[in-house]
Amino acid sequence: MADDITILTEAELRRAVRLDLEAVAVVEQAFAALASGKVVMPPILSMAIPAANGEVDVKTAYIPGFDGFAIKVSPGFFDNPKLGLPSLNGLMILFSAKTGLVDALLLDNGYLTDVRTAAAGAVAAKHLAPADVATAGVIGAGVQARLQIEAARLVRPFGRVLVWARDGAKAAACASDITATLGIEARAESDPARLVAESQLVVTTTPAEEPVLKADWLHPGLHVTAMGSDQAGKNEIDPRALVEAGLYVADRVSQCEKLGELRSAIAMGLWKGGTPPELGEIVSGSKPGRVSEDQVTICDLTGTGAQDTAIATFAMAAARQAGAGSVIST
Amino acid sequence: MADDITILTEAELRRAVRLDLEAVAVVEQAFAALASGKVVMPPILSMAIPAANGEVDVKTAYIPGFDGFAIKVSPGFFDNPKLGLPSLNGLMILFSAKTGLVDALLLDNGYLTDVRTAAAGAVAAKHLAPADVATAGVIGAGVQARLQIEAARLVRPFGRVLVWARDGAKAAACASDITATLGIEARAESDPARLVAESQLVVTTTPAEEPVLKADWLHPGLHVTAMGSDQAGKNEIDPRALVEAGLYVADRVSQCEKLGELRSAIAMGLWKGGTPPELGEIVSGSKPGRVSEDQVTICDLTGTGAQDTAIATFAMAAARQAGAGSVIST
Repeated sequence: MADDITILTEAELRRAVRLDLEAVAVVEQAFAALASGKVVMPPILSMAIPAANGEVDVKTAYIPGFDGFAIKVSPGFFDNPKLGLPSLNGLMILFSAKTGLVDALLLDNGYLTDVRTAAAGAVAAKHLAPADVATAGVIGAGVQARLQIEAARLVRPFGRVLVWARDGAKAAACASDITATLGIEARAESDPARLVAESQLVVTTTPAEEPVLKADWLHPGLHVTAMGSDQAGKNEIDPRALVEAGLYVADRVSQCEKLGELRSAIAMGLWKGGTPPELGEIVSGSKPGRVSEDQVTICDLTGTGAQDTAIATFAMAAARQAGAGSVIST
Repeated sequence: MADDITILTEAELRRAVRLDLEAVAVVEQAFAALASGKVVMPPILSMAIPAANGEVDVKTAYIPGFDGFAIKVSPGFFDNPKLGLPSLNGLMILFSAKTGLVDALLLDNGYLTDVRTAAAGAVAAKHLAPADVATAGVIGAGVQARLQIEAARLVRPFGRVLVWARDGAKAAACASDITATLGIEARAESDPARLVAESQLVVTTTPAEEPVLKADWLHPGLHVTAMGSDQAGKNEIDPRALVEAGLYVADRVSQCEKLGELRSAIAMGLWKGGTPPELGEIVSGSKPGRVSEDQVTICDLTGTGAQDTAIATFAMAAARQAGAGSVIST
């Protein structure tokens, strides 16, 4: 028989966890732990269900020093919108790292993933973007386009945002939402090359399978965070850009070479840089980050189980403090 | 936002699902589906947490024709008994195979795994044991020793059971429990060779890393089900026995060659039999099972995600019919 299990709904988790500097610090700590080599993070379990145009991914990681570890299950069923349902869902299960007993079920429908993904963008911007960012650009106009800008602004207080997306109306809606949320100037930009030219920080947030950011657009002092690619087949950044940038950083090399931007650069025979640094190595100071205001930096985020364990542990503590959740005795 | 989620506790699941012929039929159906080649079953995700002498496994499978698919999380924390807690725990999450939405959380603490594992033993005995079994032997004296005998008796109504375990007192307690549950003669046997000699059906249920059943003990008409090995490093059956038996059957070849008895036979260079048949191929009739009363047969069970999906779907239907469970709106 197990102990009591706390159940937290999406609404309760949204109240308990916000995309703020505290959440960014928790995810930053997870990256530092990842670099310590003591994290246990098995490869992602992935299952396709072609009959329903669906897939499900399971991620986990054990981080020494954290009381718990999370197992995250993320289904993506891409015919759901036809049924009036969201494509993405999922939950996290938080286990005691000491006993393996289930501590909590976080029925977040992907909310905590949204937060930890955006928080990773903030960690990348904090350590890699130039000190002065006047304009931030975002490519894509979905949930992460909004959240990545919100997160990046926690560490670089820019006053202006440009948004490009294939669908100009969606880019305009996204810009309008950013202005409403952050109270800063934001507008849709019709030319992605101009967006990059005017920005010191660019975040790509698309499921693109052909690059949306060209190597020729790189300019001194630019930082790019590519967070869209999380599967073989996706590719947002011109593979040549990875080679031409002064610094390319992976969230996890073993994942980026299979699922991230690095995969395309390797596949095209362009990557000759050996093992690139990981974000956690830069966070922990064991490898250098940006070395000059002129350097071009690129960070490739595929999403790690370590981030899930970190945000789930944090969410549970926050919810407990707020007295949120219901308890099931088993 | 997701739909309502049903939560079922261990007590509710124990009331809804029993180890009976209906459960055996559901697991048999899962094996048949596995043989059809249409099941999607990714490799097991496994993570060790050495600091707590723990491990956690995640299994899943999609079976066409089943409304849902299960993701099962099984932690094993082997220092727990020192804390007065069970080593094994876990839960299953049942998702809609059409939308990926969470349908139910089955907080079974491993109960459904116990049932589906024992039911697989019954499927093996049904298709591979000789028609007449007077005496069944079991090696090991844990939960599965009891349940494997209970399950096998659903398909072969033997009247006598012999139990061997390293600890004779545990073997005696196990035999006494079997008599109490099934109302048949059961006794501890001090010599495993004699146990095998007197039995027509033997089930091995140990975490042994050195064989507990010798090839020299095989005799005409014997069927052996080895269900203990589920990790590289475990080995219950003398590898030579796999070669000398007239028929060796795997639950899943790709798992048995890494985690089952087949692994040791391959590692020692003894296995020359090519790809062995799978239990599902015998269930579905595409490959022959036992061909004579004298044949020696061995079935190697490592445990499959298909069994988990089958038992979870079955449990949910049974609980729903019984009106069991609480509902969380998310």
